[in-house]
Amino acid sequence: MTHERSTSLRDRLRLPIGEPVDLARHDAAGTPAGPDGKEAGKAATARTGERLAVLQERLWAASTKGDRRRVLLVLQGMDTSGKGGTVKHVIGLLNPSGCRITAFKAPTAEERAHPFLWRVEQALPVRGELGIFDRSHYEDVLIARVRELAPAPEIARRYEQINRFERSLADDGMTLVKCFLHLSPDEQRRRLLKRLDKPEKRWKFAASDIDDRALWPAFQEAYEIALERCGTSYAPWYLIPADHKWYRNWAVSTLLLEHFEELDPRYPKADFDVAELRKRLLEQP
Amino acid sequence: MTHERSTSLRDRLRLPIGEPVDLARHDAAGTPAGPDGKEAGKAATARTGERLAVLQERLWAASTKGDRRRVLLVLQGMDTSGKGGTVKHVIGLLNPSGCRITAFKAPTAEERAHPFLWRVEQALPVRGELGIFDRSHYEDVLIARVRELAPAPEIARRYEQINRFERSLADDGMTLVKCFLHLSPDEQRRRLLKRLDKPEKRWKFAASDIDDRALWPAFQEAYEIALERCGTSYAPWYLIPADHKWYRNWAVSTLLLEHFEELDPRYPKADFDVAELRKRLLEQP
Repeated sequence: MTHERSTSLRDRLRLPIGEPVDLARHDAAGTPAGPDGKEAGKAATARTGERLAVLQERLWAASTKGDRRRVLLVLQGMDTSGKGGTVKHVIGLLNPSGCRITAFKAPTAEERAHPFLWRVEQALPVRGELGIFDRSHYEDVLIARVRELAPAPEIARRYEQINRFERSLADDGMTLVKCFLHLSPDEQRRRLLKRLDKPEKRWKFAASDIDDRALWPAFQEAYEIALERCGTSYAPWYLIPADHKWYRNWAVSTLLLEHFEELDPRYPKADFDVAELRKRLLEQP
Repeated sequence: MTHERSTSLRDRLRLPIGEPVDLARHDAAGTPAGPDGKEAGKAATARTGERLAVLQERLWAASTKGDRRRVLLVLQGMDTSGKGGTVKHVIGLLNPSGCRITAFKAPTAEERAHPFLWRVEQALPVRGELGIFDRSHYEDVLIARVRELAPAPEIARRYEQINRFERSLADDGMTLVKCFLHLSPDEQRRRLLKRLDKPEKRWKFAASDIDDRALWPAFQEAYEIALERCGTSYAPWYLIPADHKWYRNWAVSTLLLEHFEELDPRYPKADFDVAELRKRLLEQP
């Protein structure tokens, strides 16, 4: 079976705008519209990467003549859902010069002294770039909600603040591709055990991962609220089943490709006389 | 013939410390100690990339437990010498999450209002990272000298400022790998003509490239002075013959690998009780 894209993957994976989200109803091990298995998936992702790299160069080229458009990929998901792996395997297919990658950690004292969107604004891609957020401003309504890192009324305000922020970005030529990597608790346990069992993976493990895991239902609820309230027409959320790494990589790369194809960036026309410059070059010693 | 690395490539390509540099005596089309031709070179670079990626991950892993070491690759060279191409083909082999890439353009008004090293300091890699500078603070003694963008006495002071700056970085655990991509004027003409002749490459062309080219001898002289005065034991310059792209990619990746091998980063030991955490994980619902 080959992959038929009669409807776009965007349409398949986009969460319906304004509707409640019930994560339990989404199969984390699903492979909707995906290639037929791991090997086919890897091959398809590699091909997608080649097309993406061409469009990425065109977007950059267009930016040198004033095209302000840019793309921001937001990756969110529970520990081990594969945010870092997506950067490695999907973004690794692109020209690193055109990518601006930021992994958001616990905020520093300076970051906490500013509005929560401040550090995110510093990390945005400029025109022509693909920005990648490994975690994002959504942490401020996810872990911040679950661990009560801010007063409840403040967290309640943040959803609208995020929507206004993303609206401004979209109005200014930014395409947002927000991906929730949906992992099952069983698969997370397998991945955490693997980190414990392999000495060269142990450094990725933190005892706090187990504490967070105990709060799984609260995190899922926080995600459901965020996905519902901040899924908008200008910046929808995509739910990526993430139990299969090959599917996750294929789906994120394909979603990115569909967005780049819609942007359809073009190499700019020369604003100089090619024949004259050619002549000058050949006349130089 | 296979590539024998009885002495290191570092020793082959390092410019002698404190000695005058005569670029005309270095063959830009040479392939010293390199693989036997383009195909062998590409294959060797791919293999080098795999080993580099492992060491890059180890350096990052070590940084999570306090290892402050980091690496900065500085790429300098005339237009079309392949700084961007090196980032694409060499850095593209690595995990983009661990790379901090900065392409320095003409300084902004804010950057010009600060000391010339200010913007460079903002772009330095943090522990565990590989930083990549596509152009660097050396522009401030190269184009700044050729085009007289600063008073001569100020430029004269900058060489020592650069050395003190790099000394401090080295003392703080940064490994500097400074590569001068050495291109011949004939090869530059070929590359500029190609940019003019291919519509999808024209956007890379600027009429000012031809003006810079007319100043070729002045630029070569500025490079010779910078390479001599700022080639130090703690931050030497490597001269990379760059007329052959495959050799340039092989040489930069191999130099990086030799530096990473010397750092020999190790996965940190677990600072927790693996058996106990394993038990907790399995007991969770």
